[in-house]
Amino acid sequence: MKDLFASRMSKVPRSFVREILKVTEDPEIISFAGGLPNPNSFPHKEIAEAASKVLKENGKEALQYSTTEGYKPLREWIAERYRSKGLKVHPDNILITNGSQQGLDLVGKIFVDRDDKILVERPTYLAAIQSFGLYEPNFISVPLVEDGADPSALEDILSSGRIKLFYSIPNFQNPTGTTYSKKRRQEIASILQKYGTILVEDNPYGEIRFMGSDIPPIKCYLENSVLLGSFSKIVSPGIRLGWIVADDEVMEKLVIAKQASDLHSNYLAQRIVYRYLMDYDVEEHLKNIKKMYKKQRDLMVAMIKKYFPQNVKFTQPEGGMFLWVTLPQDVSSMELFNIAIKQKVAFVPGEAFYTDDPEKNTLRLNFSNSSNEKIEEGIKRLGNAIKKLINDNKK
Amino acid sequence: MKDLFASRMSKVPRSFVREILKVTEDPEIISFAGGLPNPNSFPHKEIAEAASKVLKENGKEALQYSTTEGYKPLREWIAERYRSKGLKVHPDNILITNGSQQGLDLVGKIFVDRDDKILVERPTYLAAIQSFGLYEPNFISVPLVEDGADPSALEDILSSGRIKLFYSIPNFQNPTGTTYSKKRRQEIASILQKYGTILVEDNPYGEIRFMGSDIPPIKCYLENSVLLGSFSKIVSPGIRLGWIVADDEVMEKLVIAKQASDLHSNYLAQRIVYRYLMDYDVEEHLKNIKKMYKKQRDLMVAMIKKYFPQNVKFTQPEGGMFLWVTLPQDVSSMELFNIAIKQKVAFVPGEAFYTDDPEKNTLRLNFSNSSNEKIEEGIKRLGNAIKKLINDNKK
Repeated sequence: MKDLFASRMSKVPRSFVREILKVTEDPEIISFAGGLPNPNSFPHKEIAEAASKVLKENGKEALQYSTTEGYKPLREWIAERYRSKGLKVHPDNILITNGSQQGLDLVGKIFVDRDDKILVERPTYLAAIQSFGLYEPNFISVPLVEDGADPSALEDILSSGRIKLFYSIPNFQNPTGTTYSKKRRQEIASILQKYGTILVEDNPYGEIRFMGSDIPPIKCYLENSVLLGSFSKIVSPGIRLGWIVADDEVMEKLVIAKQASDLHSNYLAQRIVYRYLMDYDVEEHLKNIKKMYKKQRDLMVAMIKKYFPQNVKFTQPEGGMFLWVTLPQDVSSMELFNIAIKQKVAFVPGEAFYTDDPEKNTLRLNFSNSSNEKIEEGIKRLGNAIKKLINDNKK
Repeated sequence: MKDLFASRMSKVPRSFVREILKVTEDPEIISFAGGLPNPNSFPHKEIAEAASKVLKENGKEALQYSTTEGYKPLREWIAERYRSKGLKVHPDNILITNGSQQGLDLVGKIFVDRDDKILVERPTYLAAIQSFGLYEPNFISVPLVEDGADPSALEDILSSGRIKLFYSIPNFQNPTGTTYSKKRRQEIASILQKYGTILVEDNPYGEIRFMGSDIPPIKCYLENSVLLGSFSKIVSPGIRLGWIVADDEVMEKLVIAKQASDLHSNYLAQRIVYRYLMDYDVEEHLKNIKKMYKKQRDLMVAMIKKYFPQNVKFTQPEGGMFLWVTLPQDVSSMELFNIAIKQKVAFVPGEAFYTDDPEKNTLRLNFSNSSNEKIEEGIKRLGNAIKKLINDNKK
């Protein structure tokens, strides 16, 4: 059948991370490779209660087909939450999706023609590369500096040719943990505005800031933008619920694309999540998640300081789930991966997160889904593997 | 932003049926326009029990991210059900999707390049036109005769140029209610085989046959095919769960496309449906649905015979949810719609279901989601509207 596949499929390799995650299925391996929230943070009893109420009180309705846009009260809750954080959004400008991952697919579907230039951060979220990649764009990447995308590099890129959209994760970026400062957000917004480039602002981790203070979304400074959100890190990823915020004109296209994609997102799940949000204290729940993740992040940072050679650099994010490690210039994280696996510890080599010319000495560590014991032991093993590799290189 | 949208979006009109369903939101209108299962058939108490057990026994796991392919035991259940009906399918050749609608989108994504010729039945499922349409194919249609696609027309079309895929709904087709005979299935399979055209066999209604006997899927006679299934009519449409059956090579591409689309389908819902299938008698449940739908279909047929003019033709399907009505040649169902709405009864004009050159004297009636009283009163009103239109035309 090979000659029958669409050309877009020939450009997409089998997911690198999928292959890595397979290797790490061995229960003896301590894995910092995944991107999973900590299941101890899932409110499964509360969700059980909410499910029981929804099915008892509105069972027939909750099991029926529903509207493409999503359950109105849930969209109102999301709008209200934005309002409480200073962003005015009308519920009609919110579309419920299957996690923010589907938001990426729908954005690709409505905006990206083959060979369109789209800009991503360098490095960027792997699954966004896969999602947009199926619409066959030309990827261009803008370097991340400490507090966001480099504005002068951004201006250079945008001024040298039309870029359709810029995909950014301004809070606790996956994979680097980088957060854009307020100043950087305003600068980026004004540059995008000048060149008419759409911002696709992905914010799956914004609610799990465990240090410092919230910074308004870039959307506050730029109309021409699409904002993605998710319940995956607030409630549960397995229920696959997220959303897109967009203006009327874009929303009309998104609704058409969503309807063609799967009619609507799981309606029972939308009702259950809404009921959960109504019946329980989500702030209290978030406080607990943040407390948990901060401890795990602090422990991982302490262990890195203890066990990694001093010339290894790493980020110290104020939220989210990931640390980004930069090895000395000539040390390959792919080679490190092979050594580390033998020592029963895993991570994702950084090259998975680049659209071109990868920095081969980088890697991503997840801290949200490991026990204290595993963080201590795993980082120790990884430190040993790094030292071994650096020593081997010297020979 | 208009000039920023992808070219594929310019070709898709806002859904006709969406607009029609909006008109029919008036609670005084008796609507045969929708395509909804009867909510009285939903096992909401049993689903509540299943949800409670899953969340109690495996809550943390059921709320976590899961595999793209879907919950293995659920895929094994589907494979076993096929085996019991004579089709050998390995669970690894099944991908769980968000209803069979997402199956259509994924099939479009992996197979359809812009301007590819794809063949559909004439008329065909509206949302398939929308779903495939976003991949910008050239649609060609093959007429349906009483027992399936017309084989000589099919041969003519396939011999006159390369057709990538043929999309077919062989059981109780939406919109016409047509079912392919076994002989026709074998003929169609052998013609597709000859020309190397992929069959996309959609079977959302196969389990709700309320008369006659099951006929094997066309896939039994043709390897080069993709088979779509759904829990929407067996358990609940609101939970958005369906599946695709495909060979290894196609499955690999489907998994990549599914992962890029939304990582995986709602895992909690997959666990709940599986638990429901384990703990309850699905055959008994299906028996009740079929009994209900047969009564409604029989009543609608009886009322049509009583109230419609004799020169109006209609199908009498052995399963599914729809009847197809053909008015006299010069009578427009769009004009009828406008008269009918004033008399507070609604349906979908047939032209929505054609990719080209619509038969303007056709319309679709849904019988699954109306009470006896509504079927009696609604068909009476519709009969009057038809008579009025035919009389008006004579003037």
